[in-house]
Amino acid sequence: MKNKQACLAGRQAVVLLSGGLDSAVALYQAKKQGFECRCLIFDYKQRHRRELKSAQAIARYAGCKAELLKISLPWKGSALLDKRIKLKKSHEKIPATYVPGRNIIFLSCALSFAETIGAQAIFIGAHIEDYSGYPDCRPEFFRAFSRVAAIGTKVGNRIRIINPVLRKNKAQIINLGKKLGVPLRLTWSCYKGGERPCGKCDSCFYRAKGFKEAGMEDPALK
Amino acid sequence: MKNKQACLAGRQAVVLLSGGLDSAVALYQAKKQGFECRCLIFDYKQRHRRELKSAQAIARYAGCKAELLKISLPWKGSALLDKRIKLKKSHEKIPATYVPGRNIIFLSCALSFAETIGAQAIFIGAHIEDYSGYPDCRPEFFRAFSRVAAIGTKVGNRIRIINPVLRKNKAQIINLGKKLGVPLRLTWSCYKGGERPCGKCDSCFYRAKGFKEAGMEDPALK
Repeated sequence: MKNKQACLAGRQAVVLLSGGLDSAVALYQAKKQGFECRCLIFDYKQRHRRELKSAQAIARYAGCKAELLKISLPWKGSALLDKRIKLKKSHEKIPATYVPGRNIIFLSCALSFAETIGAQAIFIGAHIEDYSGYPDCRPEFFRAFSRVAAIGTKVGNRIRIINPVLRKNKAQIINLGKKLGVPLRLTWSCYKGGERPCGKCDSCFYRAKGFKEAGMEDPALK
Repeated sequence: MKNKQACLAGRQAVVLLSGGLDSAVALYQAKKQGFECRCLIFDYKQRHRRELKSAQAIARYAGCKAELLKISLPWKGSALLDKRIKLKKSHEKIPATYVPGRNIIFLSCALSFAETIGAQAIFIGAHIEDYSGYPDCRPEFFRAFSRVAAIGTKVGNRIRIINPVLRKNKAQIINLGKKLGVPLRLTWSCYKGGERPCGKCDSCFYRAKGFKEAGMEDPALK
């Protein structure tokens, strides 16, 4: 690892940071790989805007600069954007919390940022297991996006899309986070958007299940 | 064409509308193909924000609904976003007006919109000849993005990316626009952003050359 760190000295990564567990672990994985990290946080008028506070606290804790990008999609179409749509605790193929094109938009903006500052990588904490119905969390989606990044930028294929937790389940992500020193207590998962997690939405459900399987108490609930 | 129109009845397209010639022609081509068009206009704090007024006027003239999406990229990195960078009249491989990832961001947002409203197509007026150094105007880029659209959305490959002017030069685009009844006088190309076109920037240069080759006077200059 020391050699790897030395070889990466001076390299930058853009890290998509939501405030949740997965992206916090992705950030610490990028740091461990020796990247100087620039966090990118999205205020897209999500129902759970509380996560923005967490994302900023995590970036600060990690000693990384963070940019807040505001984007307001006028078309809604998801329970995360439109409070009239119920946050069902569902196990449907594609949940009501799916935001059409969200990861594509996030990655596109990260790509623009990465190309502008000369970063070599984009880290994203998406993974297959969690909310498994999201089409833009699949490995083949990231492969397709990598091709867009290689062809649609002037730097060619110098910007890698890195998904350090893609094939991990929630318990494995939590264990990895613990090992990497991620401030798990600062992370926020609840979709409901109050000041305390609701304990009922899909996101709270998977988080609780993950901590249980990892044999840990959730430090955010203490 | 009548058959084609009938077969497309009730179909919607999202049209990326900048206010320039190319996207206006793309809009009218989409209308001609029988699509009900929803225009998507971006306010990305571009230097030439004057184009927004043109885009809205063109959408109105065409009788189409328009959505204005505001997005402010905090990282600049282009002469179109940062007034400190000179708008050189250059013929460099990649001009100073290149905005990293711009078409990728625009298409991503259009994809989110299209999926939300159930549209079947996204029209974009990018083309190869004009400002030929932009990597995100190449046919292979659009092919790669189409793959992202097919894999990264829940509707699969039902949303087509259509570039009606991709292989046309400016004069051909102008002639096509004339034939389609595009209100060419309402279009705006100048990058400078004043109330009258500067006549000096790359965009003015190519526009003037196009009208000359098409054997027409530019109606916007009358």
